[in-house]
Amino acid sequence: MTQSEDEPVELADLVAANDLIGMRLWLAEHPFYEIADALARMDSALAVVPFRLLDKERELEVFEELDPGQQQEILVSLRDGAFRELLEKMEPDDRARLIEEAPAKIAARALAGLSPAERRMTAALLGYPEESVGRYMTPEAVVLHRDITVARALEVVRAKGAAAETVHVLPVVDAGRRLAGTVQLSELVTSSPDTVLKDLVDVFAARTYATEPAEDAARLMQEANLVALPVVDSEERFVGLLTFDDALELIEAADTEDIARQSGASPVSGHYAAVGVLRLARARSVWLLLLIVASTLTVNVMQGFEATLEEVTALALFVPMLTGTGGNVGSQSATAIVRALAVGEVRIRDLPRVAWKESRVGLLLGVMLALIALAIGSLLVDPWIAVAVALSVVAICTWAAVIGSTMPLLARRAGVDPAVVSAPLVSTLVDATGLLIYFSVARVVLGV
Amino acid sequence: MTQSEDEPVELADLVAANDLIGMRLWLAEHPFYEIADALARMDSALAVVPFRLLDKERELEVFEELDPGQQQEILVSLRDGAFRELLEKMEPDDRARLIEEAPAKIAARALAGLSPAERRMTAALLGYPEESVGRYMTPEAVVLHRDITVARALEVVRAKGAAAETVHVLPVVDAGRRLAGTVQLSELVTSSPDTVLKDLVDVFAARTYATEPAEDAARLMQEANLVALPVVDSEERFVGLLTFDDALELIEAADTEDIARQSGASPVSGHYAAVGVLRLARARSVWLLLLIVASTLTVNVMQGFEATLEEVTALALFVPMLTGTGGNVGSQSATAIVRALAVGEVRIRDLPRVAWKESRVGLLLGVMLALIALAIGSLLVDPWIAVAVALSVVAICTWAAVIGSTMPLLARRAGVDPAVVSAPLVSTLVDATGLLIYFSVARVVLGV
Repeated sequence: MTQSEDEPVELADLVAANDLIGMRLWLAEHPFYEIADALARMDSALAVVPFRLLDKERELEVFEELDPGQQQEILVSLRDGAFRELLEKMEPDDRARLIEEAPAKIAARALAGLSPAERRMTAALLGYPEESVGRYMTPEAVVLHRDITVARALEVVRAKGAAAETVHVLPVVDAGRRLAGTVQLSELVTSSPDTVLKDLVDVFAARTYATEPAEDAARLMQEANLVALPVVDSEERFVGLLTFDDALELIEAADTEDIARQSGASPVSGHYAAVGVLRLARARSVWLLLLIVASTLTVNVMQGFEATLEEVTALALFVPMLTGTGGNVGSQSATAIVRALAVGEVRIRDLPRVAWKESRVGLLLGVMLALIALAIGSLLVDPWIAVAVALSVVAICTWAAVIGSTMPLLARRAGVDPAVVSAPLVSTLVDATGLLIYFSVARVVLGV
Repeated sequence: MTQSEDEPVELADLVAANDLIGMRLWLAEHPFYEIADALARMDSALAVVPFRLLDKERELEVFEELDPGQQQEILVSLRDGAFRELLEKMEPDDRARLIEEAPAKIAARALAGLSPAERRMTAALLGYPEESVGRYMTPEAVVLHRDITVARALEVVRAKGAAAETVHVLPVVDAGRRLAGTVQLSELVTSSPDTVLKDLVDVFAARTYATEPAEDAARLMQEANLVALPVVDSEERFVGLLTFDDALELIEAADTEDIARQSGASPVSGHYAAVGVLRLARARSVWLLLLIVASTLTVNVMQGFEATLEEVTALALFVPMLTGTGGNVGSQSATAIVRALAVGEVRIRDLPRVAWKESRVGLLLGVMLALIALAIGSLLVDPWIAVAVALSVVAICTWAAVIGSTMPLLARRAGVDPAVVSAPLVSTLVDATGLLIYFSVARVVLGV
């Protein structure tokens, strides 16, 4: 294939050809996030080559976009000086997560290379539980005292702003470093220089605790449209800021996880192109194994009606249609409720309302689908079998909608992530119960 | 049930009891996004009552969080003065989307009530295609000329900042209003007052065109960690800013849509609690109808092998297990690829690589699951039937993974949203082909 306008040169091809000049050109022409994306697609051993060609500033930007696994592999390939320099400049929260996931040997080398100040910050962040706000916040904020003036505050921002991750939102504290609220940089710029911060601070500004789940804090930032959310410890003292870019990342990661779980797979960290066949298979195998064992139930149900089946073989023809339809209706309900739970539109106490609503949705869909099933069945087999199929469709759809909608709520009540109530899990459960309904109805209708 | 600490008072209950004092108290104690959430759960006719109790400032904040349907119903319930005031203060992009979705009568009343300046802005936004950046950007930005000094720029921010939606990021333009780049407010604050903006402006700052899809721009902001993204017209002139809160909303909405589509449902706008049974059923019915008709294929395949089935009824016992497993494997692959496409980890040209990788994942999973199926089958039926089932599991899983992974890529190539390749669609397709594989294998193994 020739290289055309539509097929731009790929960094991977340049690396494969060991074309250093081409790589330099490519890197100069692309923004940091596209470089990170290209590296993420590559094997880490290869990614190191273009990475080393980056200038210092972009090196850091690109590095922070990679996931911890690839960061580790790149780090170990660097000389000691470069290793230390890169780690020292990383944001403390990114660095803490990298060290947490690294093997002990790399983690020790990393911590040893840090300056005392940066090492203290990293150790502090590592003290918070995994997936908590503390792991994602930055302690590097410009903290202002509530008794200073706007003029003085702007001086502090000028002096210390460069070291902070963000100065869009500034935490304001009292004498005990307790968070009084926040002030926006734009407010400082537009206010009279003599104003004292305590007259300007937004004391109703949202805040979160460092031990809270990071995803909840990110969703709060989304709801309340916050660029940065101040984080406090159990004594209301300011400890860090959660910034919108971390919130965006947290929400995207949470959605990706939920989507994977919804299909019965464990979430796989890392770029799809860089994840190997074995890791993909492992992530998907757990639920598949459980579900194929669970589907033994369907074999048992069918065996229970083997005599009926031998008498009227035509009943078997509609088994895939019925299990498929039941599974589809159940998955739709489960998916809708899992999402509504994730974005906070439904809560545990809504269970009776949700079950009642979904049962009516299921019934409505069931009646509609039953008419189609009746038409198809009448064309292909004995009309009484078609009647049995149609009646079963109504019952199975209603049942599937109730099961699919209540299971995520019951999971949440039991303290389990509702996203484990995946479409395949619901389908498998509805399969066995649906067959029971179908053969029971068929026996009555056909009198066998 | 008595009211306990765990069951806080709900606004809906106060509205139902028409408890005005209780409502006032509740509203005073909750932030605007929780108020909006509570209103979104209610019928709009009821939501109007607490809405009118809000003070002017919070009224606007709450209103902007509601979705256009409910905004309309609240608007029409207001007197002319309040109606005009609320609309005039809304952000131009939110207002444009509201007017677009409103019936002609409300839209006309709304446009007529606006001041000429706000009407012009709204009309301009309405000129952009639906779902484009133009519909979500705000034209209300503080635009700086590249030849002014930092001191002058800060004066401009002070004078005009209050009317802008954000001043965190400031667009810098040349004499022809062409975008030169952006400068951060924090840079202005920390730079020497005599610096001329052209020496400070980041000319490599990302930008987007107003006609581009809004979701793509939001994902760019996420990748590049931008608080605001400058938007230009086809002549590179600055026309507006896309802000991070709109980006967050766009990404959440896109994920919610993808998740709904993944389960074979059309996306439903609005809060789950406020959407009626009929609308939910309608959103889910389209695919269910198509799929039950498509599943006639499974009946046809089964009919084709009816003679085999009559001879060995036990073959029917494993039909739900096989179709279920094939559907699960196929859905996992489809879900993984749809998500990888959405977040940009996989592109159309990766099709051969993806198909090859997924076929190996499917084969691996198939061999593993086949061993379980062999064990289960041997316990329950004739071992030769178990062998036929096990061999079919290997073939079906491999086939399902290839189908599930390539279909979203083919959809994208055909210009269709890959998310329409839903789990139910893949399951249904794999059902029919899987049965064909199963009965063909069984005939060979059993010699019938």
